[in-house]
Amino acid sequence: MARQERAVRTRQTLVDAAASEFDRSGYHGTSLNRVCRAAGITMGALTFHFSAKDELADEVQSQGQLITRQALDGLPERSAPALHRAIDLTLELARLLEAEPVVRSAARLSRERPDRDLAWSAAWLTNVQDLFDQAYHDGQLHSAVRPASLTALSLYLMSGIESQARADHESPDAEPELSAVEQLRQIWGVVQFGICGPPGTGC
Amino acid sequence: MARQERAVRTRQTLVDAAASEFDRSGYHGTSLNRVCRAAGITMGALTFHFSAKDELADEVQSQGQLITRQALDGLPERSAPALHRAIDLTLELARLLEAEPVVRSAARLSRERPDRDLAWSAAWLTNVQDLFDQAYHDGQLHSAVRPASLTALSLYLMSGIESQARADHESPDAEPELSAVEQLRQIWGVVQFGICGPPGTGC
Repeated sequence: MARQERAVRTRQTLVDAAASEFDRSGYHGTSLNRVCRAAGITMGALTFHFSAKDELADEVQSQGQLITRQALDGLPERSAPALHRAIDLTLELARLLEAEPVVRSAARLSRERPDRDLAWSAAWLTNVQDLFDQAYHDGQLHSAVRPASLTALSLYLMSGIESQARADHESPDAEPELSAVEQLRQIWGVVQFGICGPPGTGC
Repeated sequence: MARQERAVRTRQTLVDAAASEFDRSGYHGTSLNRVCRAAGITMGALTFHFSAKDELADEVQSQGQLITRQALDGLPERSAPALHRAIDLTLELARLLEAEPVVRSAARLSRERPDRDLAWSAAWLTNVQDLFDQAYHDGQLHSAVRPASLTALSLYLMSGIESQARADHESPDAEPELSAVEQLRQIWGVVQFGICGPPGTGC
């Protein structure tokens, strides 16, 4: 293996190990010593690639944004109505939060390091907002619905999904009744058609 | 002031200072030194009341649960339909998350210390669940709606509100378009009546 290739692999091994640690223990709860142990790499090699924890966290957040953008770029385009595309986008985000420690970690670090310009939501929030605006203009939404409420709802939902996905990941034996993705799909079904029973039931 | 009363006040000053620090920086990001400085109390006095950070965090979480239960006990009883009571309960939780650092801190610590038996949601989740079940049995909900989806939705919403309330609190000048409570009220309006426009618009 060429020296450069080896360096790239070592660097990525460190980023993946750091992502798992940040995901589990947060920024302040993660020590570079533990990242080294988890990665099976010496502290000398770590500091060759990243001079401080800050840099490592920045890289995890950047990769989390990148993975998210790439996944969203891979979603089917244009043909479906805007509302369905907005919902599918949030389902894809939920899938990423469940499956990708780097993404889950980027979401957590965004909250813990709000001063860094690397918010995970920057990778998707504008897309969601545009799709809800489009759905409204296309008449898909009831005229009393503010698209901004649905954008806020999506942000809140992702925050909850992130927590559930982390808890499920930490206690794989607890077996939740529904996966986060399935739970989210049901919630959107509820939101689309409303929860009220027949008129006159006090809903 | 009697010695005992003084001790009780000192203890509460420490808990309040710790709540603000845990809220802002999380469990691992909080040092007892900083708590002492914020409380204006010596480390000797702190360790007289709390032998370790763990104990202080336990006390913050217990008080967060207690404040929450007391606030919910103070809500008007029985007369309103169950669905409205469930929604009002979540609005009260949002108010607490906005106004009470101890509650916001308890919510954060619950996520960061899942092994402690002090989850903030234990103070309210069963109530919400029972009210949604009741609303379903009373025919207030559409028969296709699973009450469990609404309980999960409430949990996700509180996770998002917690984040927004913390961000608003940390950057009071940023002035969000809507407070977390108002945002939540609009979201429940949307959820009650659904978001779909007239049939045939592809919703």
